[in-house]
Amino acid sequence: MNTKEEILTRLRQTEGYLSGEQLSETLGVSRAAVWKAITALRESGYAIDSATNRGYRLTASPDVLTPEEIRCGLHTRAIGKNIVALQEVDSTNEEAKRQAQCGAPDGSVFLAERQTGGKGRLGRTWESPAGTGIWFSVLLRPSLVPSEISSITLLAGIAVCRGIRSVTGCAAKLKWPNDVVIGSRKVCGILTEMAAEIERVEYVVLGIGINANTEAFPAKLAEKATSLRIEAGSAFPRAAILRAVLKELESLLLNAKAGSAFQEILDEYKFLCVSLNRRVGFFWNGEQQTGMAVDVSPSGELIVERDGGGRISINAGEVVVQGIYGEHLPNPEGSKRA
Amino acid sequence: MNTKEEILTRLRQTEGYLSGEQLSETLGVSRAAVWKAITALRESGYAIDSATNRGYRLTASPDVLTPEEIRCGLHTRAIGKNIVALQEVDSTNEEAKRQAQCGAPDGSVFLAERQTGGKGRLGRTWESPAGTGIWFSVLLRPSLVPSEISSITLLAGIAVCRGIRSVTGCAAKLKWPNDVVIGSRKVCGILTEMAAEIERVEYVVLGIGINANTEAFPAKLAEKATSLRIEAGSAFPRAAILRAVLKELESLLLNAKAGSAFQEILDEYKFLCVSLNRRVGFFWNGEQQTGMAVDVSPSGELIVERDGGGRISINAGEVVVQGIYGEHLPNPEGSKRA
Repeated sequence: MNTKEEILTRLRQTEGYLSGEQLSETLGVSRAAVWKAITALRESGYAIDSATNRGYRLTASPDVLTPEEIRCGLHTRAIGKNIVALQEVDSTNEEAKRQAQCGAPDGSVFLAERQTGGKGRLGRTWESPAGTGIWFSVLLRPSLVPSEISSITLLAGIAVCRGIRSVTGCAAKLKWPNDVVIGSRKVCGILTEMAAEIERVEYVVLGIGINANTEAFPAKLAEKATSLRIEAGSAFPRAAILRAVLKELESLLLNAKAGSAFQEILDEYKFLCVSLNRRVGFFWNGEQQTGMAVDVSPSGELIVERDGGGRISINAGEVVVQGIYGEHLPNPEGSKRA
Repeated sequence: MNTKEEILTRLRQTEGYLSGEQLSETLGVSRAAVWKAITALRESGYAIDSATNRGYRLTASPDVLTPEEIRCGLHTRAIGKNIVALQEVDSTNEEAKRQAQCGAPDGSVFLAERQTGGKGRLGRTWESPAGTGIWFSVLLRPSLVPSEISSITLLAGIAVCRGIRSVTGCAAKLKWPNDVVIGSRKVCGILTEMAAEIERVEYVVLGIGINANTEAFPAKLAEKATSLRIEAGSAFPRAAILRAVLKELESLLLNAKAGSAFQEILDEYKFLCVSLNRRVGFFWNGEQQTGMAVDVSPSGELIVERDGGGRISINAGEVVVQGIYGEHLPNPEGSKRA
């Protein structure tokens, strides 16, 4: 932590005022350095009251995604040790990949207030306006072969659900493979990319976009998209949500590494997955088909009983789910109508 | 094809002399343009005899890896339509990945006379001096999910074996997963890299390094490495070998796409694989172990009967093979010595 981050942490930990002298002594820096850091924090939007002979007191924090704000209270081993926060970028995944090529360490986090070319799954675009969203990417360098990588996607979905639940109380769930939904609307998308040799993954980039404090969506999106603010009825400090997600992600990754916990993780994924036990529509053998989603395999495939008969594993592509994003699927042929 | 390539092709197809007038008429270019192209070809090392009133005759081709030399007689659909030939590069795989990010098309070939940072499997370096080797990378954009990618590695190994066999007659074989060997020594290494989302491969880069006309290797490598020239006793035009490999690669990829031929391809791989039915050494469960390689699975794993008991699938890492690269493995414990 730098002086700014240390001072912010101390101010947060203190109920009343903290004197400049105390800060200077505890941190082993000059009074001038303390003053300089306080000024910088104020410039970043922190409201810091100062009173003669009493010192400084933090009265309000801005809703910013700065490294110091995110790291304050983030007790992780690797994830978030290196945070790159940008005002604007083409795509945080692209930035993460560029920096991965130049040796950025495992656990690096890349975030931006605004993405000019935000990306979604399957080559889609992702709207990422400034100020209300949490657009970030986590760089991981796991010891895996490429076929094991789908487990990380499951983990990432669970981590976002847990983080959202703990900070907002919203009942975040997952639409297979890893859209995060609240009720029937999408609150977060995850795009996992990797660079690999056949035998080993060089790095994975988890791109996560959370609609945090968006007040409303355009009419064409309103049936499909939501935000934490819309669902909970109040705004949240974005850094708190990001911190919660990063902590859960690290905890899940460490558990998964231990190996024994994998069945538990899969069970949690299934518990959270809204696609299960619902009618689904998907593309199969060159045509649009329907069926019932019945399970998720250990390698992350969605297991579906086709209306046409037969159980299949779906490992890619779009699967629409009855009742989610306003989808209404036809009844199976030959079934009675209610 | 440009004028240079067209003239080269015509000269190759003609036994005797070809007049400048004929060339100019057939190709629809001026006599001056013909002369300019002839001069450029001579500067590239082609020996072109010219005789008054008779025209031009190709008497010798240089051993160069220029796009025109490679394309001459290369009748492929996609592979090699775009060839980028460099004198020197860090690594042809890195160049391919950079250009892939900028939209280089499926089938692009990147080659260099010399690599300053040539890469091998598992983070190793690959020696790639100028003039005698064929160092190239092929960019592919297949419709695959990441777990299907190992099939491309099998295909690439077979393509190199077929190409070497057809041009040189050497009995090239494969050490699992895809070192190309002649006898007990390595003649070619293949490094497959990819960029992918969980559900779709964005691109694959096949990096292939063939020791073509190397006259001798340093003592420390002599037991493990060989070249086509050492094995066959004569030098080969490198472009002919490269062309043969590219043709075989495209043919195998098209077959594999058709799907029905996959068992045939796997059978050919097994036929070529020198690791099978030999004792092998490998790292398993944290320790060095030995066993007998008995099969290759459809997803490209090496199936091994462990000396310690039990059949396992190896999908990554180094597997040493009895008698290959000078390896001598201990006999299984409890076995009688001959």
